Amino acid sequence: MQRPSGRKPEQLRDVRITRQYTRHAEGSVLVEFGDTKVLCNASVAAEVPRFLRGQGGGWITAEYGMLPRSTGSRMGREAARGKQGGRTVEIQRLIGRSLRAAVDLKALGEHQITLDCDVIQADGGTRTASITGACVALVDALRYMQREKMITTDPLINMVAAISVGIYQGEAVLDLDYPEDSNADTDMNLVMAEDGGMIEVQGTAEGAPFTEHQFAEMLALGKAGIKELVELQKKALAE
Amino acid sequence: MQRPSGRKPEQLRDVRITRQYTRHAEGSVLVEFGDTKVLCNASVAAEVPRFLRGQGGGWITAEYGMLPRSTGSRMGREAARGKQGGRTVEIQRLIGRSLRAAVDLKALGEHQITLDCDVIQADGGTRTASITGACVALVDALRYMQREKMITTDPLINMVAAISVGIYQGEAVLDLDYPEDSNADTDMNLVMAEDGGMIEVQGTAEGAPFTEHQFAEMLALGKAGIKELVELQKKALAE
Amino acid sequence: MQRPSGRKPEQLRDVRITRQYTRHAEGSVLVEFGDTKVLCNASVAAEVPRFLRGQGGGWITAEYGMLPRSTGSRMGREAARGKQGGRTVEIQRLIGRSLRAAVDLKALGEHQITLDCDVIQADGGTRTASITGACVALVDALRYMQREKMITTDPLINMVAAISVGIYQGEAVLDLDYPEDSNADTDMNLVMAEDGGMIEVQGTAEGAPFTEHQFAEMLALGKAGIKELVELQKKALAE
Amino acid sequence: MQRPSGRKPEQLRDVRITRQYTRHAEGSVLVEFGDTKVLCNASVAAEVPRFLRGQGGGWITAEYGMLPRSTGSRMGREAARGKQGGRTVEIQRLIGRSLRAAVDLKALGEHQITLDCDVIQADGGTRTASITGACVALVDALRYMQREKMITTDPLINMVAAISVGIYQGEAVLDLDYPEDSNADTDMNLVMAEDGGMIEVQGTAEGAPFTEHQFAEMLALGKAGIKELVELQKKALAE
Amino acid sequence: MQRPSGRKPEQLRDVRITRQYTRHAEGSVLVEFGDTKVLCNASVAAEVPRFLRGQGGGWITAEYGMLPRSTGSRMGREAARGKQGGRTVEIQRLIGRSLRAAVDLKALGEHQITLDCDVIQADGGTRTASITGACVALVDALRYMQREKMITTDPLINMVAAISVGIYQGEAVLDLDYPEDSNADTDMNLVMAEDGGMIEVQGTAEGAPFTEHQFAEMLALGKAGIKELVELQKKALAE
Amino acid sequence: MQRPSGRKPEQLRDVRITRQYTRHAEGSVLVEFGDTKVLCNASVAAEVPRFLRGQGGGWITAEYGMLPRSTGSRMGREAARGKQGGRTVEIQRLIGRSLRAAVDLKALGEHQITLDCDVIQADGGTRTASITGACVALVDALRYMQREKMITTDPLINMVAAISVGIYQGEAVLDLDYPEDSNADTDMNLVMAEDGGMIEVQGTAEGAPFTEHQFAEMLALGKAGIKELVELQKKALAE
Repeated sequence: MQRPSGRKPEQLRDVRITRQYTRHAEGSVLVEFGDTKVLCNASVAAEVPRFLRGQGGGWITAEYGMLPRSTGSRMGREAARGKQGGRTVEIQRLIGRSLRAAVDLKALGEHQITLDCDVIQADGGTRTASITGACVALVDALRYMQREKMITTDPLINMVAAISVGIYQGEAVLDLDYPEDSNADTDMNLVMAEDGGMIEVQGTAEGAPFTEHQFAEMLALGKAGIKELVELQKKALAE
Repeated sequence: MQRPSGRKPEQLRDVRITRQYTRHAEGSVLVEFGDTKVLCNASVAAEVPRFLRGQGGGWITAEYGMLPRSTGSRMGREAARGKQGGRTVEIQRLIGRSLRAAVDLKALGEHQITLDCDVIQADGGTRTASITGACVALVDALRYMQREKMITTDPLINMVAAISVGIYQGEAVLDLDYPEDSNADTDMNLVMAEDGGMIEVQGTAEGAPFTEHQFAEMLALGKAGIKELVELQKKALAE
Repeated sequence: MQRPSGRKPEQLRDVRITRQYTRHAEGSVLVEFGDTKVLCNASVAAEVPRFLRGQGGGWITAEYGMLPRSTGSRMGREAARGKQGGRTVEIQRLIGRSLRAAVDLKALGEHQITLDCDVIQADGGTRTASITGACVALVDALRYMQREKMITTDPLINMVAAISVGIYQGEAVLDLDYPEDSNADTDMNLVMAEDGGMIEVQGTAEGAPFTEHQFAEMLALGKAGIKELVELQKKALAE
Repeated sequence: MQRPSGRKPEQLRDVRITRQYTRHAEGSVLVEFGDTKVLCNASVAAEVPRFLRGQGGGWITAEYGMLPRSTGSRMGREAARGKQGGRTVEIQRLIGRSLRAAVDLKALGEHQITLDCDVIQADGGTRTASITGACVALVDALRYMQREKMITTDPLINMVAAISVGIYQGEAVLDLDYPEDSNADTDMNLVMAEDGGMIEVQGTAEGAPFTEHQFAEMLALGKAGIKELVELQKKALAE
Repeated sequence: MQRPSGRKPEQLRDVRITRQYTRHAEGSVLVEFGDTKVLCNASVAAEVPRFLRGQGGGWITAEYGMLPRSTGSRMGREAARGKQGGRTVEIQRLIGRSLRAAVDLKALGEHQITLDCDVIQADGGTRTASITGACVALVDALRYMQREKMITTDPLINMVAAISVGIYQGEAVLDLDYPEDSNADTDMNLVMAEDGGMIEVQGTAEGAPFTEHQFAEMLALGKAGIKELVELQKKALAE
Repeated sequence: MQRPSGRKPEQLRDVRITRQYTRHAEGSVLVEFGDTKVLCNASVAAEVPRFLRGQGGGWITAEYGMLPRSTGSRMGREAARGKQGGRTVEIQRLIGRSLRAAVDLKALGEHQITLDCDVIQADGGTRTASITGACVALVDALRYMQREKMITTDPLINMVAAISVGIYQGEAVLDLDYPEDSNADTDMNLVMAEDGGMIEVQGTAEGAPFTEHQFAEMLALGKAGIKELVELQKKALAE
């Protein structure tokens, strides 16, 4: 088996995390996994959704979008069509859930942090890049809140990162790019905490079902990949 | 650990599968997992979505809905609100993907089968009950198509069933009902083929992340549960 | 003239009223007029629409839907299309108006009862079956409110029932089923109170206009039919 | 009983029918019932709705709207709110159905006539004024089609007119204006053909149910009123 | 160059301004520029948009619509399509902005005036006719507010009027009608105050770009036209 | 008068034009006017809108969006709200109209070029930056079409650029940034061709009306600014 990119099965693409990419957001990160580029902006607001009001805790939510020409052929603009597609809804719910696992919501107080993940250029793995980048933007937003005395303790529990794994030409591979993704038999997205705790596992057989053995192989690859990603996140945050 | 229902950790609820529940659909199944009741209707149409036209293959899709008072407190009707919620969209995409894995789409010819899964009464596990029931309705629709000479071979590859597993009070349990589901630390939905092939794995940490060991326990419980469900499906189809 | 079902002109279909059909709603009735099956759920809420707030009175409203495959060929799901059709809107307004005539809204206090009428299987007459079934569900909800001490008197003024009548092959017939309805020259829906008071009369010439004489014949048939229905409602409520 | 306007129970308001009110439509009528003013424009198109294509027959449909300040307090604009309300939908369906009864749709050929009824000023009875005015606009459109040789025979079967009747302070009255309408116990809309055939009867008890006797009184008043209206229509068409 | 209407380049169409055209609105004006007829209703409300609440000032806003058959061929009804088109949105924003320049918003107190401009018949120049007519309706609404003691001073600063100018067959012309507008190389809308102050200039090259010289010519024509319009507005208001 | 940025009245911000900013679009330009950053992607499609089909000519259209956190406080995402706001619609119509003036649509053949202008970071002047950047992306798309032999001649007539001018503290200034824009008395957007032809002039009095003299000053500033911009466009295209 030869990956189209020439990478080894367990090899991530070049990952770059650029903080303070735009100037208005409380956290603003451009995350790049090879040619996949996602801008992750964290916005802090001093109010929470209705169902949480008056309970003293906070909330983290996410929105996801692709620029119409982030992809090989132009996709219709969701704002123009007047609704977000099913895939978009699914992804933004996943991002929100994943990042809520990074934070002690009680310690956030009655604040909401919204993570806007907008895909500038797509080459596979946009949802896992979004989670990985958004966690860094989230930390910047939490630091902002501490500087501004909006909160007195650090609500971060765990760094959270995500990666895709899949079965490509019968073999488990890490971090699928678009040419792999569109030909993979199985596609799995893993979200894990820095301590190895599992937050979300979403494996889907695109063609034939996968076996438990393949599943275990993918899990092992993903675990190692996430470890690398957390190191990159921490390095970026140390700068 | 004591389950609210008194069931053992590996014990399914009473599962009932009633075929020909309504008279218009080509396949019509009421599936009950304890107090969870879902009506699964399969409709055959002699046309496929635009992206498949003229290619000779078929398609399987699903729509999901909850009656407004299928739940403890009344939910707003999606038709009245003018849009399907994110959870609905996520679930109907899962049902569609899962059942496409049951069938050789080429052998379907240019036909589409739509599986409408409408929850009459909810008590946890509606999406996995939907998949399990819809597969039976799908088989009835395929038999109809064969009787009507719309197709000449049986496109069914595999029976497909689904179950939820979770970590409740620290322990892995099978087939969560609502009181368990709303208190579980982890909720996992498994979709598998009758031969044990994995089609979809969706595990979500609701509170703390889960460990690989817990994950393996849940997988084992789910696998056994799906085996039982496939037997019940086959028994129903033999009647 | 021979009715397709073999019934006499003044003969209702077999009508069955099953209470407590689902377990969450304060009133839950499955009403069957032959092959027409409608689930009518009554939900009690301790708030009223904005235009009634602070005035001490209550409100009764209704929503109506058809499951996509309740009909011979699949209808698009209104939630997926993002709007309720004109027929749906018309019917749910009729159901709401009709049942408000059954109740002393002042005596309801500031509560709203929503009647969800969802058609599981359609064979003509779904709107009149909905009204007839919803009135029973409404009574169950009122009894619940009395048990729960939400109200101290019984707001019910009158049982309300509804039936369709029409001119089929030149002759007036009661309770049209789908084969009759789709060929009738005139279709009339009657809503009456148990004391014979008229609540709603909606007669429509589908083809040629109808005469006053035909109108009078239909009225007479309908009146007798509603009398029977009220007896069946009361019998069901006495169980 | 004294009517607010001083009219006798059986007395119509001043009715005026002005043809060629605007210059673009094939039929354009301003109809006035006292202070109620509705512009009824008929548009001819050489295509029919999808469900009729290729069958050789035509279609008549209607749309209804109220200018935001046609009423005492400003109503939100439906185009701005992004949807037509339930009352609007109900009314436009009624107008369309009523006028289809005026015409032999086969003789129309594959043409559609759309009747736009827009309320410039409202003072009760806008739906019945719409039907009465739209029928005149429809005849002008049919004459246009004959002049233009789009059709060779006159498809008109019957003039159609409509009027409201009601029980006001216990007594049956004809042609309710807004002060009466908002206090009436019962409101009934009658649509009849010039030969006395009944096309649509819609009676609604607003408060207490109405009796068969009251119903008969209203019917008699309405019948006489429609006779007068048909004469006015014919007079306008003769000019 | 010969204008289709035979008018001179600097000649307005016959302009008529009829006040109190309908009876419910606080200001109601039918404005006619030749065959272009727009009904402009001003509605006063004792509340302001959320972003202005509690600040003591008022707001003026506008909505614009065309009746479906105000034009040569029928346009779809925006309420039925479920959204206002881009042109509509653009025009109603222009009307609102223009009229806010006529009034001291502080002196309005916390009131909002909504100007509904509905085109009954279109023959070019509907947006400028709307502004010109709406300003008269606005003055009537301000007079009403003074009579009703809702305000104690007159918030009117300036009469505001608007006109279109364009380059038709190479020459600058005033007040384009539809045959000119649809063939013009350049179309410019001018909104000015009675004292000659410029409020809005919108010039658009439809075909070839226009020169500064042409621009100056159009400006001069427009300025003179607006002077005439303000006189007509004042004359109407003096009646 | 002192501009907040310290610029001279006739001074542009630093303008940067980066081509090939993303890799999928046929033309992809990041345009920066100081802190305003807009990504302009041009997409070529081999089909035209319905109203142009079969006529042999092409079309240019534009869509505009702001990332939710391109601004100082987060704006709601239009895709999530289910509709584009009035300002968005107005801007994208302006961009489309402006760029259609750059091109001989006949020479485009039956192709459509869509210009997606997405604001990554906003600091005033996003619409004029969009037009200026989109014109460069458009040229790249036209070059692509020539290389791919989709067209045989160059349809470009004129480079087109745009700039804002305004009256700030009584004085005319070029290229307003956000602090100026939000305090300007008048805001004018100018779109011109490289030969000085005027394509679009949109001047709006935000507070008091502006005089003809001020208008002339703004025009002169804008003209000079656009000259500079066209040079920058050409320099970028020469690289």
